[in-house]
Parts: sequence; structure tokens; C-alpha cells
Amino acid sequence: MRSESRQSSVGLTSVIGADPARIIEAIREVLPSPAVLPLHEPIISGREWEYVRECLDTGWVSSVGTFVDRFERMLAERCAVQRAVVMVNGTAALQVALQVAGVEAGDEVLVPSLTFVATANAVSYCEATPHFVDVEASTFGVDAATLSSYLAANTEQKAGRSYNVKTGRRISAVIPVHVFGTPVDMEALLDLAKKFGLAVVEDATEALGSTYKKRPCGSLAALGVLSFNGNKIVTTGGGGALLTNDTTIADRARHLTTTAKLPHPWAYRHDAVGYNYRLPNLNAALGCAQLERLDELVAAKRELAERYRAAFRNVPGCRIFEAPSFTKPNCWLVPLLLDYPDRAMLEQFLQAAHAAGILARPAWEPLHHLQSYRDCPAMPLPITENLVERIICLPSGPALAGVK
Amino acid sequence: MRSESRQSSVGLTSVIGADPARIIEAIREVLPSPAVLPLHEPIISGREWEYVRECLDTGWVSSVGTFVDRFERMLAERCAVQRAVVMVNGTAALQVALQVAGVEAGDEVLVPSLTFVATANAVSYCEATPHFVDVEASTFGVDAATLSSYLAANTEQKAGRSYNVKTGRRISAVIPVHVFGTPVDMEALLDLAKKFGLAVVEDATEALGSTYKKRPCGSLAALGVLSFNGNKIVTTGGGGALLTNDTTIADRARHLTTTAKLPHPWAYRHDAVGYNYRLPNLNAALGCAQLERLDELVAAKRELAERYRAAFRNVPGCRIFEAPSFTKPNCWLVPLLLDYPDRAMLEQFLQAAHAAGILARPAWEPLHHLQSYRDCPAMPLPITENLVERIICLPSGPALAGVK
Repeated sequence: MRSESRQSSVGLTSVIGADPARIIEAIREVLPSPAVLPLHEPIISGREWEYVRECLDTGWVSSVGTFVDRFERMLAERCAVQRAVVMVNGTAALQVALQVAGVEAGDEVLVPSLTFVATANAVSYCEATPHFVDVEASTFGVDAATLSSYLAANTEQKAGRSYNVKTGRRISAVIPVHVFGTPVDMEALLDLAKKFGLAVVEDATEALGSTYKKRPCGSLAALGVLSFNGNKIVTTGGGGALLTNDTTIADRARHLTTTAKLPHPWAYRHDAVGYNYRLPNLNAALGCAQLERLDELVAAKRELAERYRAAFRNVPGCRIFEAPSFTKPNCWLVPLLLDYPDRAMLEQFLQAAHAAGILARPAWEPLHHLQSYRDCPAMPLPITENLVERIICLPSGPALAGVK
Repeated sequence: MRSESRQSSVGLTSVIGADPARIIEAIREVLPSPAVLPLHEPIISGREWEYVRECLDTGWVSSVGTFVDRFERMLAERCAVQRAVVMVNGTAALQVALQVAGVEAGDEVLVPSLTFVATANAVSYCEATPHFVDVEASTFGVDAATLSSYLAANTEQKAGRSYNVKTGRRISAVIPVHVFGTPVDMEALLDLAKKFGLAVVEDATEALGSTYKKRPCGSLAALGVLSFNGNKIVTTGGGGALLTNDTTIADRARHLTTTAKLPHPWAYRHDAVGYNYRLPNLNAALGCAQLERLDELVAAKRELAERYRAAFRNVPGCRIFEAPSFTKPNCWLVPLLLDYPDRAMLEQFLQAAHAAGILARPAWEPLHHLQSYRDCPAMPLPITENLVERIICLPSGPALAGVK
């Protein structure tokens, strides 16, 4: 509610709407040269070839190999956690994180509606149900204050666990998502999770390199998840990781991702229904080379965001989103925020921008609108509904940011 | 039963057991030089570098790219089907194949107990239950004759569907597995499937390059599945594919593997709970180069099998497995078969072989023995129980077969 009133007051100061042509002009001011401006494409100009070649030369392309271990060590160090467990993608890492966090079939898991569909899909794979929660306009992330009131009114506590009074189902976890790389206000959320007996799985799939109160995203809860999909700041083609300080949990996660096979030189015995989710060494090799350049990539992308901010300073009806001062986003995607919701104008802009080769995009269709998830439980979602008609993600790739 | 009696008569002709030292001697006769003989390692000496480099140079490493399309076309052509849909691994392909075949939560799926655990896991991911079936000693694959009698006695038919009379659950599909690359006797099985209203998902994960009555494995049923894991005849690091002649089903499978996202230049809308299962272009590039050499690899491996056969001709108590004449296996792994079941001798041999650097392996622990699956329904499994105490897979990699 707090956020909503802040937003509305902004809306009131600019009574004229944003003009698509004027937005395109400002983007072209920042990015004058190429004919097509992709949203986010990888830069592969470090030691990628050297490492990939080493994989091919040694024949260690599959899920056992030195780059898998090295990539895990690099990620753990970079994110200031004890252990990273790499997997085929971020969705797989979310699913395994939920499982090791204790989410069981029949549970509900609190998920923002303003996120990529994979967050909710991972819950579904656990045979649990997403329960959609609203976000703050100041971070685009889960709003602990409104969620706390909602849970107080709609759950009952038994033996340290929370149950949805309407459905009778246990609510076992919450997944804060650092949308577009902007950190969620985690302290308030961790307090709430403690109070309501919820596991926290931090969806940092978009936030490698972001920090919250000087701590790396992915390390802020008991379990964190990264993604290295082709559109992410660091890519492995496709890949993801689970982060944790708990070595027992890391071992368990690793075991589940390697078909739960018991170590043995020749026998094939498995002690659980596991997965074939381990990242191949070939992809890890790419990841090692990419990760070596993370600081450079983040710095360039932050600078790009500043250039956008300057260019949009005098564009009426919109502004470059500014994250709270206690965060340092990686600026994975730079969001432009319309002063007030206007789906028609948003569509008009996206048509014009794509026609001009500017591959900007809106936020995702909120998950509670999708047919697969529209019957799931949900708290009132006014900020989500408001933001999805205001957000434009600008072309933000490292090449556009000047990285060679 | 037919197979069992054939086997027993073989057992009776050789009253002395196999001797571990004598087996090791015969292996060394075929493979004299290296200190360590791995079970199966990839050969990466074709155009892999060239293609992978092209991926890195163009930046198209992720799930959209020319090698993904090319690998799919090459696989479809090679396996004589209309369409191939490539995925992150064979397990994912099995899961999606079962879903598009109409397997639903609560169903049972007929699965051999003599297979890698992924076959049953894929069933579990569909929230269905594996129902274990026995195999023939002549192919190691599902025995249509005994299965037909079993189903006649243990199911009832309603509106063209079969229901397990004990559990009341629908039995919706059967997964024949071409174990170690040896084709299942598919004609009898397809007849049975028709009679009992079962979908057939052909698990050809080990059988790329094998043929059954001159037709490629993977193309023998409405849906086939391949794997390109690091230990397979063709590897992509990790990968798999679904094969089908039904373009509607192929499109549906592809849609499910790309988060069920509806095509749109910027909107993120999804019409089902999909997966992040698409194979990255980087891995597809490796696959294209590997697949170009499949004929050479299969020929070399078949020759290695013949060399093993000659070397073991006079070794008492065992013989190199011979597939039926209507099949041509790819000889992915060459099985040595003890004349009679002897777990103690098997363990003794594996100990001695590994100590000598010969990384032979037994069959998998039968799935109905695993704690996750021991309570699943199962028909009597005498041949499976017999075979798992008789099978030794010999080192069979392409390098050992003389491929440079």
C-alpha cells in the first residue's frame, strides 16, 4: 500500500502520457549505431575458445570434468557461499532447491506473479501449487509488509508451520525473485519467513553480480539459484546453479541431479527418484571464461543504465527505474517505467520500437493471468497489475554497453 | 518361458563356471595396449572444433541457432522419421514423449526392470507409476509373449483402454528399451500394444545406429527417444531427442520444451506448464560433427564385437552375446554372458578387472530392487533376475575399436 501511494503521487505529477516516438529518440541517443538493437546478447571474446577447446581435446565434454568443478568453485567464491551445484538450467536448480528446502507434494509455495514462468513451473514440478503474492514498486520484488498482513489474516500456525485457512494446505516456502537484477528487500522478507515458518529459496536467476547491502545476490537466504541461459549476464548456452552455505544440502542437491546414483566403481544403484540435471563440462567451460569477465560486464551495464538515465531525464511521462540505495543491481535489463499504467501506449511503443529494430520488451504476462495458473490461490495483486502496464525493458546487452 | 528354457539348456552344457582370470586374458587379447580400458569414452576428432568455434564466433550458443535445426534434420534423416526434437537429455525426451503420448497422472506405464533408472524416472515425472515387465534372454528386451499372457490375466478392457485389475489404474503405455543397443523384437510388441490400447514410446537411448528388420531404431513406434550423454555412441555433452513421423506431435513436444511460450515478438505468454528442456546450440554443434561419423563408429564397434567373439570362443562358462539375425545392433556396449547366474563370480571378476584397469560393468541393479520402485506393480521377472547375474559389459568405446 505504501508503495502504491508513492507511485500514484508520481503519476499525478505527469499528467501527459509518454510518447513512443520520443522514447525511441532517447534510446537512439544512447545507442546510435547498429540497425538492430537486440535486448540482450552474449559477448564471447574472453578465454571461451581456449577452455572449450581444452574440453574437446581431452574428450571430457560430459558431466564429469574439471570445468564443472572449477565453475562451481568460481561461483561459490564470487557469490560468497560455501558451495555451488551447477545444473542444466535455472529451472532445474529452482526445482531441486525447493525439494531440498523440504517442499512436498500438496504444499503451496509463495511466488510473485511478476516473474518469468519458470519460477512457478519449478513449484509445479514438485507437485506443489504456486500461491501468488504482490510486489513493491520500489524493487519489483516481493513486498514483505503487505505479505505479512495477508499471511496473518489468511493462514493459521500449527507447530511452527503455516496453513492456508481457505485450502487447508501447508504453505512451506517463499521464492523472492530479483526481477531484472534488482534485489528484493530481503531483510524484511527473511523476518517474515522466520515468523511464518517458511523456507526461502532466493531466485537470483537474473541477479548474478547484484548486491543487497553489500552482500551478493544468491547468498542472501539458505538457498539461492542462478541461471546462465543465453540471455543472461553470464551464459553457458543453458545452465543454472544452486548456492548454499550448507554442505549437507549441497551434497544432497548434487546427488539428486546425478540420478541419485550411489557412488560405486561399477554398480548402478540409486536411492531416490533423481534427475539427469548435471551441467555438462562443455557448458561449464564456457561458464568459467564468461565468469572471469563478470566485473567488467556489470560495470559496463551499470554505465549503460546511467547513459539511459541521462537521455530519459527530459522525456515526459516516463523515467529510468531507480533501485533503492541499499542495493546495487547488475542492470541485467534496464527498465524504463511509464508514469502511469497504459497498455495501449505500451503496445504502440513496442510495435514502433520493433519496427525500428529496437528489440525492447515489456514485463512478463503476470503468472496469475496464464491459463495454467489462473486458478491458483493469490493475494490481491494491485502493484503487479499496475507495473505490468508500465514496464519497458530497454536493450541492455554487453555489446551495446561497449564491451568488446 | 520360451527364452528361459533356451537359456537353461545352454547352462546345462557348460557345467564349469567362468574364470575371472581367463576372461581378463581374453579381453587383453583383443585390447592389448592401454593401461586403462574405459568402458566407453567419446572420440572427438571430426569437425567438432570447427562447428563449436562457429557457435562461439557467432555468439549463438543458446537454444536458438543453426546447429539445433541442423542436428534435428540430420537425426530425422538418419533415423528415417519426419521430425526430431532435441532436448537437454534423453530423460527429458522420455518424459515429454510420455506426455505427448497421453500418459496422465495416476496411470501406470509398462517398463522393463532391466534398464537404466531414467526410464522409470521419466514415468515418475509424469506422476505415473512404473509397472515392471520381464525381458527375453534373446534380446534383453521386453518379452511380448509373456507380457501378453500377463496382461490378459491381470487387466480388464473398457472402451479400448486397459486397467490393472489389482490397482484399478489405467495402463496407458509401454516403453520397450533396446538394451545396450540390441533391438527389442518390436513387431510382437506393437501387436500387443494395439490389442491392449497402449501407447508405445521406444527407448532407443542406447541404440542410435541399430536396425531392426532393416529399419532404424527410434523409428519403430509412434514415438522414439535418443540420448547423447557422454557415454553414448554420439555425444553432445548431454542431450537427447524425441523422434516421430507426426508433425503435430513434434510441434507439441517442441512447444513443451520451450516453456510452452506462445510465439510473439515480445509478449511472454505460455499456454501450459512447460519445460526448459531445449538443447543449447553449443551442444547441438558438437552433435552435428559427431553424427557425421556415426557409420564409421558403428562399423568399428561391430568389428570390435567380432574380435571379442573370436577371443571368447574357447573361454569356458561364457560367450559374447549374439543378437537375433533380424537385428543389427550398434554394439554400443558388447555384452559377455555367463552361462549361468553367479553373482559371486560376477563380483569377483569386476574386482579383478577394475584392479587391472579394465572398466567393465555389470547390468544395472534391476529397477524393482531399488527402494524408490520396489513397491511398484510388477509381473514375475525370472529372466531379468537371471540375466543381471550373467551380464558383463566389456570395454566398448570407439577408441578401443580403433577409431582415431
